[in-house]
Amino acid sequence: MPSVQPLPSESEVLPQPYLLFLGDVTEPGYAKTAFGLRDWARERCVGEFACEAATVTTGLPFLTPVQAHAQGARTLVIGVANAGGVIPPQWIPGLVQALDAGLDIVSGMHAKLDEIPALRAAALRLGRKLIDIRRPPRGIAIASGRKRSGKRLLTVGTDCALGKKYTALALARAFAARGVDADFRATGQTGILIAGGGIPIDAVVSDFAAGAAEMLSPDAAPDHWDVIEGQGSLFHPAYAGVSLALLHGSQPDVVVVCHRPGRERVLGHADYFLPSIEETIELALRLGRRTQPAIRCGGVSLNTSHLDERDALRLFEAERERLGCAVADPLRGGAAFERLVTDCLA
Amino acid sequence: MPSVQPLPSESEVLPQPYLLFLGDVTEPGYAKTAFGLRDWARERCVGEFACEAATVTTGLPFLTPVQAHAQGARTLVIGVANAGGVIPPQWIPGLVQALDAGLDIVSGMHAKLDEIPALRAAALRLGRKLIDIRRPPRGIAIASGRKRSGKRLLTVGTDCALGKKYTALALARAFAARGVDADFRATGQTGILIAGGGIPIDAVVSDFAAGAAEMLSPDAAPDHWDVIEGQGSLFHPAYAGVSLALLHGSQPDVVVVCHRPGRERVLGHADYFLPSIEETIELALRLGRRTQPAIRCGGVSLNTSHLDERDALRLFEAERERLGCAVADPLRGGAAFERLVTDCLA
Repeated sequence: MPSVQPLPSESEVLPQPYLLFLGDVTEPGYAKTAFGLRDWARERCVGEFACEAATVTTGLPFLTPVQAHAQGARTLVIGVANAGGVIPPQWIPGLVQALDAGLDIVSGMHAKLDEIPALRAAALRLGRKLIDIRRPPRGIAIASGRKRSGKRLLTVGTDCALGKKYTALALARAFAARGVDADFRATGQTGILIAGGGIPIDAVVSDFAAGAAEMLSPDAAPDHWDVIEGQGSLFHPAYAGVSLALLHGSQPDVVVVCHRPGRERVLGHADYFLPSIEETIELALRLGRRTQPAIRCGGVSLNTSHLDERDALRLFEAERERLGCAVADPLRGGAAFERLVTDCLA
Repeated sequence: MPSVQPLPSESEVLPQPYLLFLGDVTEPGYAKTAFGLRDWARERCVGEFACEAATVTTGLPFLTPVQAHAQGARTLVIGVANAGGVIPPQWIPGLVQALDAGLDIVSGMHAKLDEIPALRAAALRLGRKLIDIRRPPRGIAIASGRKRSGKRLLTVGTDCALGKKYTALALARAFAARGVDADFRATGQTGILIAGGGIPIDAVVSDFAAGAAEMLSPDAAPDHWDVIEGQGSLFHPAYAGVSLALLHGSQPDVVVVCHRPGRERVLGHADYFLPSIEETIELALRLGRRTQPAIRCGGVSLNTSHLDERDALRLFEAERERLGCAVADPLRGGAAFERLVTDCLA
């Protein structure tokens, strides 16, 4: 069973293909929804669109909404995940332009599309749909802490926006390639758009966040793996609570620690230094042990998109020796990544 | 300025006095809202009411809603805080009875009163109010992690429902008695009913929970203290994420660790042993240091309501020697408590 499937349910209701909207983003880290869809659902993206102030690009063709619609696009997907999940006023004209051109809008922001009067009015007038995918399911229970059957892997990070989702997607795909029954479990809006399901864990009321994580990876066959997309960081001044709830509720057998070499400060919180990889491993295991005493670290995933191949391979080797565990960049694949996969499954 | 004031704003809209409703509760730990109001707002409570199956009592006179109304009661307050904040079907007849008798209903449960058809219909028919106080304010921002002026104390626990709110209320009152400008900051429904304000932190969407904690204790005068009611426990399999968000957002200068001697397992999660007091101090300081490097432990608060005075005093002395910090039961007061207050303010 392939681990990353085309959307099984939501895809049937989300009109496709997509035009990716980048807002006025100048920081690539905030455009991760757009990059995620480009990288993991490329066949469903016709191009990108943005405000004039944007400097970030996915590399897909820039199309106006009218051009995109002419090329088949049916939905504009807001490809931005900014702090707070807000839709700033300067995006509204572009979004209305998309509705005018015949596109529906999909958003994973906290802000709800239909609570913005200009969008609501335009959608009503034009008969367009405004679809918010960051609404958690109803009926989430308080976490029980009960041990569930099946195996689980959770990606944890030294920070936000540095590869936890990509790592989980790549590991789920690699597990499946080795004949292991595995599911990618999405916990954020991009993952949900890619996977076609999941729970936006950071949109769940905090008392229920660990319960949502339990719900997301239910009892399964003993040799089945859920590969769960991590959120935030246990060291993040705003999101650590989300990360801890996800860690406790997921009860992972294995964590893979994700980091971007060279990043020294928390994205959007420049007063905060990043923790080291060792600190992150140690704290994730210590806190995770509370609900999963057998938790272990399967290895480290480095986001090396800013390095050339030779420097990246050298870094993997040096970090592997220093940390004493498998170190790889899942997007580079190769022997290092195969070893990471092996160690996770060991 | 007294630290625990009569409700300044909500009190003017919450019709008073109260009849406390105990549902069908048989576990005293779940009736903490009723006990809290009895102990900290006694003058506003005319009595208690419950389903036949209830075995817990506040010791206040049992009154039917009709009797309570005749004695001046204007509102039935749901005095129960069960896991999940649900309103079970067996409570509905009693609640409708209260509406019939002329009482409004106040609830701090997650479940919303007006989403229960029988209550909604009865309230509409009778012109009664259904008031949910567990609705967080709008406009909560993502936590910034910025250091705020003024001083803060947070109570943290080895578990839920063992004295974090009482400890914070007693400390705020003791600070005020020493002429220290202090405010009790409520984070749960009972505290909010007592204090007349606050944010129900466990009802906030998880991404915003640390931001809500920042909002709850804003910049203040350098010698002002916010005494913040803790929630859950960093070791709780369901609520640790809430506790961590509150710890990070509160940026406490001082934590006071609360425990109930003799409790060995997590309330409602009997598979989980409680952490030791030492582990709790150590983890709170370690995690709290992330947003407040100067964090320290002011001492330990023990809930000794089940011990006689002599055993309690012996225990304080033994624990003080073992732990090397002030140990007291705020509800017993005395020299031990005065020392705890002194150490917190030191």
